Amino acid sequence: MLVVMKAQATPEEIQAVCDHIVQLGYRPHPLPGAQRTAIGITGNQGEADRGNLEELSGVAEVIRVSKPYKLASRDVKEEDTVIRFPGTDATIGGRNLAIVAGPCSIESREQAFAIAEQVAAAGAQFFRGGAYKPRTSPYAFQGLGLEALRIMAEIRERFGLRIVTEAIDNQTLDLVAEWADVIQVGARNMQNFSLLKHAGRLRKPVLLKRGMSATLDEFLMAAEYILSEGNYEVVLCERGVRTFADHTRNTLDLSIVPAVQRLSHLPILVDPSHATGKRDKVLPMARAAIAAGADGVLVEVHHQPEKALSDGPQSIYPSQFVEMMNDIEKIAPVVHRKLPRGVHVQLADADTHDSKPR
Amino acid sequence: MLVVMKAQATPEEIQAVCDHIVQLGYRPHPLPGAQRTAIGITGNQGEADRGNLEELSGVAEVIRVSKPYKLASRDVKEEDTVIRFPGTDATIGGRNLAIVAGPCSIESREQAFAIAEQVAAAGAQFFRGGAYKPRTSPYAFQGLGLEALRIMAEIRERFGLRIVTEAIDNQTLDLVAEWADVIQVGARNMQNFSLLKHAGRLRKPVLLKRGMSATLDEFLMAAEYILSEGNYEVVLCERGVRTFADHTRNTLDLSIVPAVQRLSHLPILVDPSHATGKRDKVLPMARAAIAAGADGVLVEVHHQPEKALSDGPQSIYPSQFVEMMNDIEKIAPVVHRKLPRGVHVQLADADTHDSKPR
Amino acid sequence: MLVVMKAQATPEEIQAVCDHIVQLGYRPHPLPGAQRTAIGITGNQGEADRGNLEELSGVAEVIRVSKPYKLASRDVKEEDTVIRFPGTDATIGGRNLAIVAGPCSIESREQAFAIAEQVAAAGAQFFRGGAYKPRTSPYAFQGLGLEALRIMAEIRERFGLRIVTEAIDNQTLDLVAEWADVIQVGARNMQNFSLLKHAGRLRKPVLLKRGMSATLDEFLMAAEYILSEGNYEVVLCERGVRTFADHTRNTLDLSIVPAVQRLSHLPILVDPSHATGKRDKVLPMARAAIAAGADGVLVEVHHQPEKALSDGPQSIYPSQFVEMMNDIEKIAPVVHRKLPRGVHVQLADADTHDSKPR
Amino acid sequence: MLVVMKAQATPEEIQAVCDHIVQLGYRPHPLPGAQRTAIGITGNQGEADRGNLEELSGVAEVIRVSKPYKLASRDVKEEDTVIRFPGTDATIGGRNLAIVAGPCSIESREQAFAIAEQVAAAGAQFFRGGAYKPRTSPYAFQGLGLEALRIMAEIRERFGLRIVTEAIDNQTLDLVAEWADVIQVGARNMQNFSLLKHAGRLRKPVLLKRGMSATLDEFLMAAEYILSEGNYEVVLCERGVRTFADHTRNTLDLSIVPAVQRLSHLPILVDPSHATGKRDKVLPMARAAIAAGADGVLVEVHHQPEKALSDGPQSIYPSQFVEMMNDIEKIAPVVHRKLPRGVHVQLADADTHDSKPR
Repeated sequence: MLVVMKAQATPEEIQAVCDHIVQLGYRPHPLPGAQRTAIGITGNQGEADRGNLEELSGVAEVIRVSKPYKLASRDVKEEDTVIRFPGTDATIGGRNLAIVAGPCSIESREQAFAIAEQVAAAGAQFFRGGAYKPRTSPYAFQGLGLEALRIMAEIRERFGLRIVTEAIDNQTLDLVAEWADVIQVGARNMQNFSLLKHAGRLRKPVLLKRGMSATLDEFLMAAEYILSEGNYEVVLCERGVRTFADHTRNTLDLSIVPAVQRLSHLPILVDPSHATGKRDKVLPMARAAIAAGADGVLVEVHHQPEKALSDGPQSIYPSQFVEMMNDIEKIAPVVHRKLPRGVHVQLADADTHDSKPR
Repeated sequence: MLVVMKAQATPEEIQAVCDHIVQLGYRPHPLPGAQRTAIGITGNQGEADRGNLEELSGVAEVIRVSKPYKLASRDVKEEDTVIRFPGTDATIGGRNLAIVAGPCSIESREQAFAIAEQVAAAGAQFFRGGAYKPRTSPYAFQGLGLEALRIMAEIRERFGLRIVTEAIDNQTLDLVAEWADVIQVGARNMQNFSLLKHAGRLRKPVLLKRGMSATLDEFLMAAEYILSEGNYEVVLCERGVRTFADHTRNTLDLSIVPAVQRLSHLPILVDPSHATGKRDKVLPMARAAIAAGADGVLVEVHHQPEKALSDGPQSIYPSQFVEMMNDIEKIAPVVHRKLPRGVHVQLADADTHDSKPR
Repeated sequence: MLVVMKAQATPEEIQAVCDHIVQLGYRPHPLPGAQRTAIGITGNQGEADRGNLEELSGVAEVIRVSKPYKLASRDVKEEDTVIRFPGTDATIGGRNLAIVAGPCSIESREQAFAIAEQVAAAGAQFFRGGAYKPRTSPYAFQGLGLEALRIMAEIRERFGLRIVTEAIDNQTLDLVAEWADVIQVGARNMQNFSLLKHAGRLRKPVLLKRGMSATLDEFLMAAEYILSEGNYEVVLCERGVRTFADHTRNTLDLSIVPAVQRLSHLPILVDPSHATGKRDKVLPMARAAIAAGADGVLVEVHHQPEKALSDGPQSIYPSQFVEMMNDIEKIAPVVHRKLPRGVHVQLADADTHDSKPR
Repeated sequence: MLVVMKAQATPEEIQAVCDHIVQLGYRPHPLPGAQRTAIGITGNQGEADRGNLEELSGVAEVIRVSKPYKLASRDVKEEDTVIRFPGTDATIGGRNLAIVAGPCSIESREQAFAIAEQVAAAGAQFFRGGAYKPRTSPYAFQGLGLEALRIMAEIRERFGLRIVTEAIDNQTLDLVAEWADVIQVGARNMQNFSLLKHAGRLRKPVLLKRGMSATLDEFLMAAEYILSEGNYEVVLCERGVRTFADHTRNTLDLSIVPAVQRLSHLPILVDPSHATGKRDKVLPMARAAIAAGADGVLVEVHHQPEKALSDGPQSIYPSQFVEMMNDIEKIAPVVHRKLPRGVHVQLADADTHDSKPR
């Protein structure tokens, strides 16, 4: 259920409605919009009792939300959510595209700095790197942990990049929230509801990756778990789904971008690296993601991918990253977007790893 | 197996090699390239006997083809295949994007002409329309048949559009080959090998749609069926695959575009209409297809989609088609492509059915 | 729409109703049941006009059929369809399980006879063997054609087995209908609607395999194509669907057995050989199919699978077939079924290729 | 790597080898077999250094394990793992089938006792019931928590049933380990590696459900996570995978049963309730599971499914459970199995909810 306040409703009136909702035994979620504030109501099993909400001062109307997700729905918040990082020009959502780049895993200070320097120079606003790695095998490299978080904190200071890194359980979640700017919840944890709730109680943006076989409804419901705990800064991320097709590691489902944008106000990024698992498919799919209307991309970049401890074959070279940024810069205006920092370095012809049709 | 001729080999030398291959009991497929001619060899079970092929005059080398498909492979023909339509500027493959547009089914002369006029004005080079419809239900509209073929032949004359239409069995194949410019083989018939062989004996380009659950190898092998009969003008078309995802009718697998381009010289189009099944997803996916490097798109356009006898919900309005063409025109240069005819009409603001992120 | 006749309706009354339906411009399909006859009506677009059908003599009621398939539905025919082969004890559907066995392809008279003798001795009533093979590669063995049909006709005479073989297009369909007892339509042709209609005009039972990514509705609609042309003897066959899972060639979807039985009166067999693609999975899945309630199984048997020209790895040995028949004989009574011929030979311990859990 | 000890090796020799492995910097996993003990080695990145292991007293041979999973592999332990519950006749694995039955969620003491009484009377050895429920929606019933664990502990005392219940995070894992006999890890948590490791440090059997889109390798690797921490009592459970098919909630992949049994020594159960999501499909699929060779089934039973707080439509009635047990009792001998407790109550004809083919 949703209480839509009048445009001229005062903060006091909004607070009074919230208090009333608490008295009814539910939980209020005030969601300020450009025109007016809406207050989502959760905590009810089935249809909530409206009580006399409609008669309270400042209330325009009380409406039922028909979707299984509420706070993630455009019914509840019509304007796109834009996530800002105070004191920086980095945003996710809105006109500026968000570019997240970095290695799969932080392997060493040298490796991380070498990559960060190049992606920053090419215009990325966000640096990604795994500190805690969910690996299919218990015997595979599991990440440098806290040491990696510290390295990334240094990178933030040095290059002005916001840090995105994955938390794999409630313990690492608290650490990641302390050290990073955006908490990533991986595809395998998309329905780890305990982790989602815990993330919902933090006040850091959460980047939620789509599960390997998640439907759109399940994806939005997973976001709802975070929102329903009061954390309204959720970024969705498409990273490919599992199908019979075997020419890429997963099948990138770009059509979920306009599908999300129709139903939800949350921003959505695309990760062409995990989706394809193959270096030569990353650029075409990154271009396609922007053309489809995504709010940005998340790509794996490594200066020596053949030596990477994880996911080397899907990491692009820094020179390819520059090429990608140049391509994105040209496509962005078609979808009314732009790269906030432009592309600082140009592509040297000799460095080109050509991925375009001949 | 593949015989690569020397750059300066004469037509007589090429013919002599072909004759020799016939004598060995195999079938030669001379494939002229920009630099030199290669001659594919089919008809062998397992490894072909090279005989003394390498010693024939004009032969540079004889090489094994390791892929299960041969004639479809870049090993055999390195240059991209470009299909030309003599006497017109229409092409499929190469620098010019191929834009195929029209209604799902030809319903009447009026309907077909109304749509053709608008898509021609907006820069399409190809008109598509169903004469014979493969329908899931035996009780659904099955197409106007020969009458539709005749209407489309008129459209060719009137608007200078090349005609693409589907054949559903060997009988309709002969009729379609007689009346149309490009023979479409639908997704459900991608492994109708009898139909593929029959199409391979014709000398008209064939547009082969990917089967609903076809792997890349199976897709290229289906093309190989046509090529192996001597018809080298095959156009591939991605139209979505069947997965668990339910927000679109099928899941558009754009990563097959660079995957095909790496392995094969055949052009590949993308059909965002059948892939998504939803009007508001067609433009984002058409833009994404071009950005991913596709050789063109095939879209359903209807001036009155709410009255369409089939697939109305996925047909875009003519005004949306104009918007799509404008967007494609801007994205094309990023992938070194262009719209050969430009976009003749501009988008009237009032007509916009906006499909872009806000 | 469906006209249900009174229990005591006379043949003349039934004929009069059929004539009336023809006058209304539709097509009548009289479907005799144990208690009374129903008459399916096809040929209408949308809702048919009932005219004064309900007032005709002998008519009990006229009911709407809500499913997209009509003649395949239990709404139209409540009793299970049982297909009989006059002059033999072979049936498909009903209490007796149908066991179809034989090699993937007929490779020679000797091979076919060797296998037929053993499967007949072990109690199979049907012999399967490919004469025309739909192969993914144009360069693979395509079957012996007419010669194979002649060999199988001899096998019918010699061993009393009914012959099941695949038709791959309209041409081979006529030949198969002439020489075999059951016409198989393969998975790749499940939506080859031209072939289905042609098969519907014949008067031979059709074994219709489920397409690799066909939903239950599409499967029944494909059957409806055959039924709607007047051939009411359709046998469905589950043979695995395409999924991400890679431990078997396809994923056998046994739950479609009770799902079909709930919605349709048509019999359904299971093919564990194509479903799994692996010899050691065939027996467990054959037992499971019978336990799930299937009307029988279709399995590939080869006396020298390591030398088979196609599908060797999934063909079971004759001794395994005997083992399978012994297992099925014991499971059958649990689902109120039986093997009509029993198992003539017993399993020699030495021959066991054990496939059971230890 | 795997150290195979001689048949006559003494406990002291085994201990000495383990000590040596620790000295090499790895972790030893002694796995006693019927004939002799094998010692798995983990903790190595890539190939472990054999040192002079082969020369130690009592060592028969040192072999490389080629699979990505080691401790889960039959290479390392040839005999089937049988999990015993001291002081009871309940086992999982081996000749006796394990029957796990109960409601989706514990809703009240009355509900749980009513169901437990009936499933115990019909021969189940295990009672399942959700205390902590992973629900797609944050607004759905999330389980009674500790209260449910207490109710189930009472049920163990009263009816002699072993308790199986799900843990959804590290916190609930400790509680479940304290109160229950078998810890269930749900499909959504199959790759929650933090949870798996935590479960691996406990000394309670773990029932690991296959993820919705997990391959066989991933499934066994998830088990390996638990085994590698020293908990060797892992039970696998197939519960359906996500595919395009829409006639059941998931697609039950029974072929994974023989596939697991070929590669791994771990027992595997089948859950036909979650796999199908439909009451009328549960019995056919339970019969099929046993016929395919599963070590048992896990089914949802509810005395008033229409009032169930979760998963009512897939819960069978107690009378259907009796029918299932009667059917399983007859199929079991075909696969050399038996129901350890027989079926105490017989099926009253009047209660039959018939699910068999007519």
